[in-house]
Amino acid sequence: MPYVGVGIQQRSASLRSHRMIRAYAALLGGVLVSLFIVGMGKMQADAGGVPIPRKESIEEIQDQIGRALMEAIEGEKIKENLRALTKEPHQAGTKANERVAKTIEKMYTAAGLQKVHTLTYDVLLSYPDWDRPNTVSIRNRAGRAVFTSRGVSAPILPDEQGAPHAGHQWLAYSAPGTFEGDVVYAHSGTPKDFAMLKKLGIDVTGKIAMMRYGEGFRGDKVAEAQAHGARAAILFSDPAESVWMPPEGVQRGSIMKLNGDPLTPLYPAKPGAYKSRTVDEVKEARIIPSIPALPISYETAYEILSRLGGRPVPGEWQGNVNVTYRLGPGLRDGHTTVVDVKSSLETKHVHNVVGYIPGQDEEDRYVILGNHFDAWVYGSIDPNSGTAILAEVARAMVETTKNTTWRPARSIMFAAWDAEEYGLLGSTEFVEEFVQQLGDRAVAYLNMDCFAGNFSLDVRTIPSMRDVAIDVAKRIPNHLEEQVALGRKTLYDTWARTFPGQNGQPDMKIPGGGSDHAGFLTFAGVPVIDFNMINATRNSYPLYHSLFETPFVNEHLYDKPDFAMHRAIGRYWAELARTLADSPVFPINVTKIAEEMGGNYVVELRKTLNQLPANPNLLEAKQQVDFLEKAAAKFLVRSQHFAEHARHVNAELQNNPYDQRKLRGVNERIMMTERCFVNPRGSPGAPQNRHVLYSISEHDSYSGKVMAAVYDAIDDYANATDKKKAGRKVAEQISIIYHSVHCATNTLKHFF
Amino acid sequence: MPYVGVGIQQRSASLRSHRMIRAYAALLGGVLVSLFIVGMGKMQADAGGVPIPRKESIEEIQDQIGRALMEAIEGEKIKENLRALTKEPHQAGTKANERVAKTIEKMYTAAGLQKVHTLTYDVLLSYPDWDRPNTVSIRNRAGRAVFTSRGVSAPILPDEQGAPHAGHQWLAYSAPGTFEGDVVYAHSGTPKDFAMLKKLGIDVTGKIAMMRYGEGFRGDKVAEAQAHGARAAILFSDPAESVWMPPEGVQRGSIMKLNGDPLTPLYPAKPGAYKSRTVDEVKEARIIPSIPALPISYETAYEILSRLGGRPVPGEWQGNVNVTYRLGPGLRDGHTTVVDVKSSLETKHVHNVVGYIPGQDEEDRYVILGNHFDAWVYGSIDPNSGTAILAEVARAMVETTKNTTWRPARSIMFAAWDAEEYGLLGSTEFVEEFVQQLGDRAVAYLNMDCFAGNFSLDVRTIPSMRDVAIDVAKRIPNHLEEQVALGRKTLYDTWARTFPGQNGQPDMKIPGGGSDHAGFLTFAGVPVIDFNMINATRNSYPLYHSLFETPFVNEHLYDKPDFAMHRAIGRYWAELARTLADSPVFPINVTKIAEEMGGNYVVELRKTLNQLPANPNLLEAKQQVDFLEKAAAKFLVRSQHFAEHARHVNAELQNNPYDQRKLRGVNERIMMTERCFVNPRGSPGAPQNRHVLYSISEHDSYSGKVMAAVYDAIDDYANATDKKKAGRKVAEQISIIYHSVHCATNTLKHFF
Repeated sequence: MPYVGVGIQQRSASLRSHRMIRAYAALLGGVLVSLFIVGMGKMQADAGGVPIPRKESIEEIQDQIGRALMEAIEGEKIKENLRALTKEPHQAGTKANERVAKTIEKMYTAAGLQKVHTLTYDVLLSYPDWDRPNTVSIRNRAGRAVFTSRGVSAPILPDEQGAPHAGHQWLAYSAPGTFEGDVVYAHSGTPKDFAMLKKLGIDVTGKIAMMRYGEGFRGDKVAEAQAHGARAAILFSDPAESVWMPPEGVQRGSIMKLNGDPLTPLYPAKPGAYKSRTVDEVKEARIIPSIPALPISYETAYEILSRLGGRPVPGEWQGNVNVTYRLGPGLRDGHTTVVDVKSSLETKHVHNVVGYIPGQDEEDRYVILGNHFDAWVYGSIDPNSGTAILAEVARAMVETTKNTTWRPARSIMFAAWDAEEYGLLGSTEFVEEFVQQLGDRAVAYLNMDCFAGNFSLDVRTIPSMRDVAIDVAKRIPNHLEEQVALGRKTLYDTWARTFPGQNGQPDMKIPGGGSDHAGFLTFAGVPVIDFNMINATRNSYPLYHSLFETPFVNEHLYDKPDFAMHRAIGRYWAELARTLADSPVFPINVTKIAEEMGGNYVVELRKTLNQLPANPNLLEAKQQVDFLEKAAAKFLVRSQHFAEHARHVNAELQNNPYDQRKLRGVNERIMMTERCFVNPRGSPGAPQNRHVLYSISEHDSYSGKVMAAVYDAIDDYANATDKKKAGRKVAEQISIIYHSVHCATNTLKHFF
Repeated sequence: MPYVGVGIQQRSASLRSHRMIRAYAALLGGVLVSLFIVGMGKMQADAGGVPIPRKESIEEIQDQIGRALMEAIEGEKIKENLRALTKEPHQAGTKANERVAKTIEKMYTAAGLQKVHTLTYDVLLSYPDWDRPNTVSIRNRAGRAVFTSRGVSAPILPDEQGAPHAGHQWLAYSAPGTFEGDVVYAHSGTPKDFAMLKKLGIDVTGKIAMMRYGEGFRGDKVAEAQAHGARAAILFSDPAESVWMPPEGVQRGSIMKLNGDPLTPLYPAKPGAYKSRTVDEVKEARIIPSIPALPISYETAYEILSRLGGRPVPGEWQGNVNVTYRLGPGLRDGHTTVVDVKSSLETKHVHNVVGYIPGQDEEDRYVILGNHFDAWVYGSIDPNSGTAILAEVARAMVETTKNTTWRPARSIMFAAWDAEEYGLLGSTEFVEEFVQQLGDRAVAYLNMDCFAGNFSLDVRTIPSMRDVAIDVAKRIPNHLEEQVALGRKTLYDTWARTFPGQNGQPDMKIPGGGSDHAGFLTFAGVPVIDFNMINATRNSYPLYHSLFETPFVNEHLYDKPDFAMHRAIGRYWAELARTLADSPVFPINVTKIAEEMGGNYVVELRKTLNQLPANPNLLEAKQQVDFLEKAAAKFLVRSQHFAEHARHVNAELQNNPYDQRKLRGVNERIMMTERCFVNPRGSPGAPQNRHVLYSISEHDSYSGKVMAAVYDAIDDYANATDKKKAGRKVAEQISIIYHSVHCATNTLKHFF
């Protein structure tokens, strides 16, 4: 049914559904739909005349649809999903994980999603030898083992955790091999730590580097150890960083230093497609290590630490294993350490599962909700808490379309990604395959990997999405009764109080590289929100990547049996999606980019350059900052005019439904403004890092950093001998930001 | 006024204007517009009821609007424009050319275009020393000059050609310098020619290479000479290639081997923007030569050729100067040759002039008509025949909107580019600045640089645009009375007969790199049509880049005083624009890409690979051809389904104007299918060559070649010592085509 004009003024573009106009059309047409008595699935006819509704009613109807949708999300169903998804360990590329994919396909189909199917890629994965665990042993001078780790963690809840091989301790992409030698304790394995070792006169060359988890990506630690000449690497979970972790538990994980299939950079690893890189080239490029690496429990770590020779470590390097940590090299009494890792690289099929609720007005605009489903073991937190919630969001949304007249105006896509744990492979290959369509059609990507606590919402997003992240949080009831009792009725209330940020908003970091949103933002330029629940301290979550992540933990340690927190996450996800799918003008505020650019980024950049020793080779770079500042000011003015235009188009919309074309034009501009910050050639040396503002630093692959390529160039300048050339590189990188800002200004204009 | 449904079925998407529906709305609303009595500028009211028109009437109305537009184009006005534009020599970057830009701005404004303004860039240009002409001299053993060229051609029509310095003989981007030495005759200066010289035992090292124009780009000749060790280069117009050229005439031109400003590759040379390359780097990269080069007349060439020593040249190297051509090296009697070139590189402002007729339905979709305005001297053929016609097309279009109810549905943009002659600088910088907006909004770019003859239409375009190029040509009356007398009533009739091609269509080449369409197609992926009039032989046009291109030539040698041919060009241009602006579904046939891919490109590629000596290192490449073939077959099926869908949307359009959104979606898909063939990283070593099907070969910069990067890789393979690596490069380039084809298939689908 086409729109009819109902003569109602809308004041604001955001958070008002033009789907609502349709609901009105139905009302005015004499069919009163029991929109809000959700769960009954009935429609009641009403022949009576209905007066033109007041403006407030639109908001009411919308609020009621939102409430209907939220009520439709059931904790019990999430719990069922979670149990179905975590029956067995399911690493990417295994038969078990294929079974999980099938389970998700069934869930999506049963939920009523349309076009449910899988997208398959052939990617390079890594496995241990399941029958021969990896070990670390200690040998005496006679060469006899005085200690050998079991290499397998024992379950605590055998009913949930007792599958064969579930306890296997390993790191994906470790080189296979056995190395016997001396251990050096390298603290967290950061460049700073290795520099300190050097200062302390300890050489890691030919040694085994023993490092704690924490402070950065484990792959960087192993790579750093290898770069310093280490022949093997051991990673352990120091109790200082490992809340709840049993003495035998280990953190598994990938140590590949790249997102996506390493053999098919920039292009999708479609079955049969050419692989432009060989495994040897991947190793030469240090994307995967050439040395064996394995994770050990702190029980095993104790065996080494308690025997380690050399001087005591610097004070802040001491951890919580109950011995005095020493630097090494080597154990006392001439004992040696043996690291024995069995592993193989294998090309395997991985399968993303997708399904849709097609948009009724704009089928070809997508709001995408995603989470991965592969896990290191059972994955009941990471990631299947999210998988279970997402499937329930899908079911609740379809149910709401059945029980009300509501249909999303734009398409909502549900995506369960495979092989995230190995390096975001499933989502990265997807983004590489569909980068053009995403650039052209994706409104936003909403990622929830897993929660890492249960106290407060935590949101990582880009400036243009902050408003919608906040507005929606204000609509979601708080799952914590004790917080509600303190007057904090919504997720927003606890969030704003726990993580206060600037301008009276909660603090929202720029998304980093740690989950499936990364490709969407950094390669395709799609606005993303990556959110979860965390504790007030923002630590890594307890039991991370361990055997012990099974449903018991969700049900009794993180959440209550009613899954109130799981539901709250689902509600936030669903309401974000509905808002982005239904708002006539996208609730994406490009003015915020301009404000950040002029108000913060340029200011910080100038400060950074001014802190460097004055040098004529920096003049060009400084000139480019001035030039960028002027461009940012222009962009700000233009974006303010555009916002005015968008409001105008939005206001006219109801009186003249023909203006859908104009609305589409406005939204196209919003999308394309975001895409201006994609440099199609990527940052120097990292063509996959294409977002010039919010890509991942080549010097620090874990965290999100603004204008990473510029700051990397500044770092390089500081260390360069050829300051002239290095200074030019800084200027060039700043000029690339300038061109993006200028592109954004041009995008908001009507003509060239 | 919004659309109203008039219940008329449209059978075909192409060439039917949905603007027409509006014209009907006016008719049905009781206002009968004297649509077709053009030139009267009146509207007549008619209160009478008008019956629902028959289907045919839509076509009739459309035909009549087309005729009205064509009639509005006046030969006399083109002639006036041409005189105004060619008053003085106007090289890019000179005050005289700024005056021409102002003249165009005034013409566009007077024509009634909107938002007329200039877009300015700062680019690296090159000039001679106007007060000290470049010369070539011959010295005897005593060092005394026995001949010195004047370095300035004398005018034939002093009234039109008598400006100071007009006759100056020079090549842009020549290095300055004086070199005395021996001449070697290197025929056309192609790699083949230099190989032949080597075979003949003639070493060019330390010599002056003397080469004829013809067979490729002059910049390649000079670069080739430099690469073979020549210290200076002389180019002459052999009478064999130079119809009508007076003995003293020379062909000027640029010898830069790159499109766009060489100091700001890939980014626009906005005033103040960072220049990422230095002049030294440009020379090191051999983008501009390090040796002096100059053009000489055949009168001067005679002085050298008649004294040249050595053996006679191979038979096919002999030209039409009336002496026996000899190879050299050196002149008889110990005479030497001195090349003396004065030149300087200067960064200058250049100014593109743009103006618009805003689209009434889709203001943010652009059909762009372009031609450059800078010239080597007066430029009355190249390029101002085109400039004069384009300004008249603008005037006639605006006039038609005033005298009828017609308004283009989409925006029509008129562009006069600066600094084309130096290397497409104005248009390339424009494309670099607006590449994102062009990718998102440009329907097509229609280029006419200048005519090169007067007999037949000649069209260079890509497969998807062939149909519209033909359909429009069938509507344009033939300007040649003698052809009309032979029954060839339209431009199409003469064209199809003169240049018959495949499938009963006229032969249309892929556009090469020689004019301003290049950046649109190869960098931005915008479909282009580059057309002109030529003689049946397709030779370079008489008097090309000479002093003698002044209006007399247009009026009396190429065309008749009524400018019938100039008008015919304008009519074709205008009707192409109107068709692309008004057709509800873009008349861009993406199915043709799929047909060419599977039917021709894959077949040719396989043949080429099979002709190479069998080698296991080619296996991967051959597998990729199979893979590509399958992808092409899928693309074909999908594009046929899409065409069906597009027809359906088009047919429904009139009954349900709400479906404008769907129409926009269909057209978005057509645009984005074309854009799939843009590889954002460009071809290896040439990031500006981004179109994977229709970019310019790095091995042959003048002509358009299909899948240039693939064939370049095959060439490299043939010459490679590391066949394994080279074979992988071939496979990789083929896989990039595969990914583009797959992207096209995905673009035509509704979901991922």
